[in-house]
Amino acid sequence: MRNDGRQNNRMRPLEIVPGFLKNAHGSVLVSFGNTKVVCSAMIVDGVPPHAKASGTGWLTAEYDMLPGSTLDRTSRDRNKGQINGRSSEIQRLIGRSIRAAIDYRAIGERTLWLDCDVLQADGGTRTAALTGAFPAAVLALAELRSRGKLAALPVLDSVAAISVGIVDGEAMVDLNYEEDRRAEVDMNVVMSGGGKFIEVQGTAEREPFDREQLDAMLALAAEAISAITEKQLAVLKGVWRPG
Amino acid sequence: MRNDGRQNNRMRPLEIVPGFLKNAHGSVLVSFGNTKVVCSAMIVDGVPPHAKASGTGWLTAEYDMLPGSTLDRTSRDRNKGQINGRSSEIQRLIGRSIRAAIDYRAIGERTLWLDCDVLQADGGTRTAALTGAFPAAVLALAELRSRGKLAALPVLDSVAAISVGIVDGEAMVDLNYEEDRRAEVDMNVVMSGGGKFIEVQGTAEREPFDREQLDAMLALAAEAISAITEKQLAVLKGVWRPG
Amino acid sequence: MRNDGRQNNRMRPLEIVPGFLKNAHGSVLVSFGNTKVVCSAMIVDGVPPHAKASGTGWLTAEYDMLPGSTLDRTSRDRNKGQINGRSSEIQRLIGRSIRAAIDYRAIGERTLWLDCDVLQADGGTRTAALTGAFPAAVLALAELRSRGKLAALPVLDSVAAISVGIVDGEAMVDLNYEEDRRAEVDMNVVMSGGGKFIEVQGTAEREPFDREQLDAMLALAAEAISAITEKQLAVLKGVWRPG
Amino acid sequence: MRNDGRQNNRMRPLEIVPGFLKNAHGSVLVSFGNTKVVCSAMIVDGVPPHAKASGTGWLTAEYDMLPGSTLDRTSRDRNKGQINGRSSEIQRLIGRSIRAAIDYRAIGERTLWLDCDVLQADGGTRTAALTGAFPAAVLALAELRSRGKLAALPVLDSVAAISVGIVDGEAMVDLNYEEDRRAEVDMNVVMSGGGKFIEVQGTAEREPFDREQLDAMLALAAEAISAITEKQLAVLKGVWRPG
Amino acid sequence: MRNDGRQNNRMRPLEIVPGFLKNAHGSVLVSFGNTKVVCSAMIVDGVPPHAKASGTGWLTAEYDMLPGSTLDRTSRDRNKGQINGRSSEIQRLIGRSIRAAIDYRAIGERTLWLDCDVLQADGGTRTAALTGAFPAAVLALAELRSRGKLAALPVLDSVAAISVGIVDGEAMVDLNYEEDRRAEVDMNVVMSGGGKFIEVQGTAEREPFDREQLDAMLALAAEAISAITEKQLAVLKGVWRPG
Amino acid sequence: MRNDGRQNNRMRPLEIVPGFLKNAHGSVLVSFGNTKVVCSAMIVDGVPPHAKASGTGWLTAEYDMLPGSTLDRTSRDRNKGQINGRSSEIQRLIGRSIRAAIDYRAIGERTLWLDCDVLQADGGTRTAALTGAFPAAVLALAELRSRGKLAALPVLDSVAAISVGIVDGEAMVDLNYEEDRRAEVDMNVVMSGGGKFIEVQGTAEREPFDREQLDAMLALAAEAISAITEKQLAVLKGVWRPG
Repeated sequence: MRNDGRQNNRMRPLEIVPGFLKNAHGSVLVSFGNTKVVCSAMIVDGVPPHAKASGTGWLTAEYDMLPGSTLDRTSRDRNKGQINGRSSEIQRLIGRSIRAAIDYRAIGERTLWLDCDVLQADGGTRTAALTGAFPAAVLALAELRSRGKLAALPVLDSVAAISVGIVDGEAMVDLNYEEDRRAEVDMNVVMSGGGKFIEVQGTAEREPFDREQLDAMLALAAEAISAITEKQLAVLKGVWRPG
Repeated sequence: MRNDGRQNNRMRPLEIVPGFLKNAHGSVLVSFGNTKVVCSAMIVDGVPPHAKASGTGWLTAEYDMLPGSTLDRTSRDRNKGQINGRSSEIQRLIGRSIRAAIDYRAIGERTLWLDCDVLQADGGTRTAALTGAFPAAVLALAELRSRGKLAALPVLDSVAAISVGIVDGEAMVDLNYEEDRRAEVDMNVVMSGGGKFIEVQGTAEREPFDREQLDAMLALAAEAISAITEKQLAVLKGVWRPG
Repeated sequence: MRNDGRQNNRMRPLEIVPGFLKNAHGSVLVSFGNTKVVCSAMIVDGVPPHAKASGTGWLTAEYDMLPGSTLDRTSRDRNKGQINGRSSEIQRLIGRSIRAAIDYRAIGERTLWLDCDVLQADGGTRTAALTGAFPAAVLALAELRSRGKLAALPVLDSVAAISVGIVDGEAMVDLNYEEDRRAEVDMNVVMSGGGKFIEVQGTAEREPFDREQLDAMLALAAEAISAITEKQLAVLKGVWRPG
Repeated sequence: MRNDGRQNNRMRPLEIVPGFLKNAHGSVLVSFGNTKVVCSAMIVDGVPPHAKASGTGWLTAEYDMLPGSTLDRTSRDRNKGQINGRSSEIQRLIGRSIRAAIDYRAIGERTLWLDCDVLQADGGTRTAALTGAFPAAVLALAELRSRGKLAALPVLDSVAAISVGIVDGEAMVDLNYEEDRRAEVDMNVVMSGGGKFIEVQGTAEREPFDREQLDAMLALAAEAISAITEKQLAVLKGVWRPG
Repeated sequence: MRNDGRQNNRMRPLEIVPGFLKNAHGSVLVSFGNTKVVCSAMIVDGVPPHAKASGTGWLTAEYDMLPGSTLDRTSRDRNKGQINGRSSEIQRLIGRSIRAAIDYRAIGERTLWLDCDVLQADGGTRTAALTGAFPAAVLALAELRSRGKLAALPVLDSVAAISVGIVDGEAMVDLNYEEDRRAEVDMNVVMSGGGKFIEVQGTAEREPFDREQLDAMLALAAEAISAITEKQLAVLKGVWRPG
Repeated sequence: MRNDGRQNNRMRPLEIVPGFLKNAHGSVLVSFGNTKVVCSAMIVDGVPPHAKASGTGWLTAEYDMLPGSTLDRTSRDRNKGQINGRSSEIQRLIGRSIRAAIDYRAIGERTLWLDCDVLQADGGTRTAALTGAFPAAVLALAELRSRGKLAALPVLDSVAAISVGIVDGEAMVDLNYEEDRRAEVDMNVVMSGGGKFIEVQGTAEREPFDREQLDAMLALAAEAISAITEKQLAVLKGVWRPG
C-alpha cells in the first residue's frame, strides 16, 4: 500500500473550482490532493513578432511557484533575471499541449495567456497545471464570445495530464511528493479527451526501465486521464462539450 | 455616497484566513473586499551578507502580483530581469514596517521571509499585504517556537496598514480601484497596535493637499487601524497577544 | 546642540548653481552642506509606450550615486543588472513630485528627463535631488522655448523638498549623515511653493512616533521649504516666477 | 521513399571523431548526415552549492548553437541575458541522461562539464549532442585516470539517443530538418547500451498519436540505438567497454 | 630560438578552409597553428535602429569562445547576462576593421553578421578571427550576388591581422599562448592588403616599450600581413581580387 | 587653423583639481577644455576571486558618463543590464595602464577602485579619465599610508594619456568632439612619465593610414604627454615624485 493509503491505480481527490480569480477572463483552482494550482487565462490584444506575419492569434503559457508553495522556500526567478530551467520546460509543455487542442489561430490578432501558479506543491504540479489550464482557457474564450468578439469556440478536443511512475519497482499513478522523490521512473502523460497521446515524457531518475514497465505506466495514465476528462467536462458544462 | 455604497469612514469587509498555504511555516489569506493577498512566512537558515557580521537574524519581504490578479494582465518581472519599481517600493515598505514590530535580531542566524502575492487586486493591495504579513510572521515564529528553536516570540507590538485618500474633495478610507484611480491624494498609513505611526506616505496624485486634509485622512486611518488590529489579534488568539 | 553646531530648526548652507553641465539643456549643482547633487534636465523627442496613446509629453527622473560619493564605495547598479530598490524608490518620488508641478503633457511628444547624480552624500540626498531637479527642469523648458518650440513654460508651481526627523527624541530639520543614522524617525516632505503638501513620507526607523512628533516635524519642514523656495526662485529669476 | 532517398528505418551516415578539440579533456565531433555537433568534456575542481553538502562530484551539460549553424542566423543568448527555453530543455535532458550512466558522485569534489555546440543543424541536434556527449565524457574520465586522479572509470553503461517521428502518417527514424518541420509527431528516445529506456519524449506537433504509432516509433528507435552504441564502443575501444 | 622552434619572424602554419559551415552564407575555418577559429558570415534583412535613418546597410561582428577551446574551461557569457569585456573589445575591433574594407552601406537594408567562434585557443585568436572574417564576408557577399540581389561586391580592399610582441626583450611575430603569457609587450596590427594601417593596438603587459621596439614590431607585422593577404586572395580566387 | 583656433600641436587648457569628492580616499576633477571627468580612487578590503589565490592586492577601473554629459542624452547602462562595449573597452584600458605604473600587489588584500565619471564630454574623455585616474590613485594610496597601513607608496612611474589624430589629412593633438567626428584616424597614446609607451591604439575611422602619419601622431603625443606629466606632478607635489 502507498504512503497515503491509496492503491497503485488510485488518483488523489481531484477538484476543479472555476472562477477562482475574479479579474481574469477565465480561471480555475485545481487540486490533486494537497497539490493546488491557480490557472488563469487572459486574452490580450496583439501577438508576439513571430506570429505577426501570419495575421492570426497566439497561445502561450507561463508557470511559476509561489515562494511559500514548497516546504523549503522557493526563491523568485525575477531576482536572478533568468527563468529557471524547470519552469521553462514546464511552461513550454503546457503551451504546446494546449495548442494541440485549441485552434489559437482562430482568435484574431490576440494572445491567449495561460498562467499557472502553484499555491501548494505536493507532486504533480505540472500535470495539475496543464489539467487546469484547459478549462481556464475555454472559460476565457467563452467570455470573449459573450462579448461578441468570437463566433464559435475554436476548441478541437479536451486535454488532460497525469503523472505516473515506478516506485519500489511498482507502477503507480499520480505520485505525491514523497513518492516522486523516491521514484525510479517519473513519467508525465498528456492525452486528449478522445484518448490519444499529445505528449509522453518518461525519465529514468534512478534506474533505466524496460518495455513492460512503460506499458504498465501508460495503462495507468489512460485510465486516470479518462476520469480527469470527466471532471473537466463537468466544469465546462453549458460552455463547451466535445463535438 | 461612494461607488460601492459605503460611507467615507467605512472599510470594506475584512477577512484574515490563517493556514492558507499548508507548506509555509505561517500563512494567511487576507481580503479587503475584492482585494485578496496571500501572505506566507518562512524561516530559513542563514542571513544575507550585510547581516552576517552582526551574528543575528534578518527579516525581509517580497511582493508580487499574479498575472491574472488585474483586469489587464500583469506581466511577470522575471521576463525583464528587473523587479518593477512599484513592487520594489512596496516590499521595502513591508519589510521596514514589520521590522519595527518584530525583533528579528532575536531569531538566531535565520531569515524570516515574508512573501505577499496578490491574487485579486481592487485597490489597497500594499496595505492588505502588510496587514496579512504581520500575522503570517507571528504564526511562523510560533511554529519555530513549537519546534523548540525559539524561547519566546520576539514580537514587540502588532502592525497594520490602511489606505486613505481624498476623492472628489472628500477624505475616505480604504479606497477601491475605481476610487484610487480618481483620487486627488493617496495615502498609506502604517500603525502599531498601540496607536503610533510606523509609516506615513501621502502623495498628491492630482492636487497638492493642505494640513486640514492631512488631518482628516490621519483620523480616518487611526479609526480603521484599530478595527484591523482587533481582527489580527483574533486570528492570533492563543498564539500571541500584545504585552 | 547638534553634532555640527546647528539648532534644530536650522538647515545647512544651501547653494544652487545653475548651468553646471554645459551640454545638458538645463542643469544645477545643488548643495545642502556637504551633500552635493548634479541635476540635469534634457528634453528628448519621443515618449515611452504608455504615454504614446495620449499623444502628449512625458516627464521621468533617474537617480544614482557616484561610486565615490559615499565613505564606503557604492558599487554600480549596471554590474548587477538591477536598479537597487532605494534608487528606484527615490527616482519614482522625484518624477511623481515634479509631475505635480509641471504640466508635462503640454510639451509635445517629448520626454523631459531629469537626472540626479549624487557627487557627495552627507544625508538628505533625495530631498536635495528633488530640490535641484525643479530648477533644472525649468531651465530646460526655457531652453526649449528659446528655440521656439514651446509657447509658454508649463510650470504650475515650484516644488521643493526637505528631510526632517526625530533624533534623540527631538525634532530636527535637514539631518546630516550622522544624524540620519541615529534617527528614530526619518521624514521627507515635498511641498509646493504655494505651501501645500505634494508628498509626505515618514518612517519609524527605531521607534514608532506619535501625533505630536509628526506635527513638530511638519512645522519644521514648512519653515525650511519656504526658505528653499526663495533660493529656487532667485536662480530662476528672469526665467520663471510663480503666477 | 524519404526526401533524401532513405528508407524509413535508415539512419543517416553516423560519424564520431574523437579528439576534435585539442584543449578539452575529452571531445568528439559527431555527425548524423549534415547535423554536426562538437561535444567536449572538461573536469573542473569544485562543485555547485547544491552538491557541496554531499561531498561528492557533479555532472552538468550545456547546449548551444553557433549563429551560423542554421539557415536563418541564430542569435546569441548572451545578448538577451536569458538562456532560451529550448536550449535549457535540451541541456537538462543531456545532463539527466548521462547522469543515469556515469556515477558522477565517484569523481571527487569535481564537476564534469559536458559542452555540446552545434556547428551545423539539419534535424536531430539534441540526440546527436547526447550521443556525442557520452564518449566525450568517458574520454575525459580516462584522461583524469591517466593523471592518477581516478582509480577506475565510474561508467555504468553507455547511453545513446535517436529521434523518431510520424511523417505523412509513417513512422521514420532520424528525421532531417525538412522531415522534422513536417512531422505530425516528434519523439526523442534515449536508451542505455543494455537496451533499456532512459528517457522517452514524444510530442504531437500536429496530430495526437495512438498506441500503435507509439509502438512503431519505439521499435525504430531501439534498432537505431543498437547501431549507434556499436559506433560509440568502437570509438572508446581500449578506453572503456560495458561490464 | 622560440618554444616551438620558430624564428622570430616566422608565423605558424596558416590554413584557411572555405565552406566550413554548410548553412552559413559564407564561412571559413582559419588556423594559425593550434589556434582554430570558425568564421561565418550571414546576411540578414533589416538593420539596427541607429542605421535605419540612413536607409543603408550595416555590418557587425560577434566573437566568442567554445567552453572547450581553452585549457581551463571558459564559462558561457549567457549565464551571466553580460558579454565579457574582452569579447566585447575584440568584436568591436573586428567589426570596425572589416567596415574599413567593405562598403556595408551598399548592401541595401541588410545586416552582414560576422560570427567568429574559437574552437581552439593557442594565442592570437583575435587576429585569426579577423583574418578569417574577411574572406567569410566576401563569400557571403558573393552568395548574395549569385542570387541576383547585389550588382557588384562592395569590397574596397582586403584586411588581415597579426599579433606581434616583445618576449624576453626580443620582437616576435604570431605569439602562441605560452609566449603571450610571458610577453612584455603585446601588439595587434590590422592592415589592408594595400599595406596601410587600419588598427594598431600595442600594450605594455609588463614593461613600457620604446620607439625602437615599436618599430621592430611594426616591421614584423607588415611582413606577416603580406603573407596572410596572399593566402586570403588564394581562397577568394575567382570570387574577388583587389582592384 | 583648427575649429577652436588652436594650432595642430596645441592641447586645450588642462586643469587637475585635487580633492574634488570629499568622501573618496583620493579624487580629482580633470578638464581638457570642455571635457570634464571626475576621477575618484577608493581602497576597499578584499580582492576579486582571481586575485585571491595570490594573496596580494588588485586594482580595477570603471568608466561611465553622466546622462547629461553629452549633447544627446546618454542612457544609463543599468537599465539594459549590460555595460556598453565602449565603456567596457575604456575601463579595461584605464585599469591596464595604471596597473603598469602602480604595483597593486603591494597594497595587501585590498582592491584599489578607480572610478571615472564624465561630467562633460567634448572629445578625449578616455584619455582625460586616464590622466586623472593616476593622481587620484596616488592620493588614495597616500591616504592609506597616512593611516599607517602602507609603508611606502608602490608607485613605479607616472602615467598620462592623450588623443591624437588625422583630421583633413593633418596630424593634430587633443581632438575636440567636432574634430573627433570628422577624423580620418583616431589614436590614443598612453605613456609613462619616463617617456615610454604603455599603450598605443590607433584606428582608421575613414581612411587607412601610412607610416609617416603614424610617426607624426606619435611625435605630437610625446610632446603633449610631457606637458601633462608636469601638471600631474605639480598636483602630487609633497605626496609623490618619480624616483
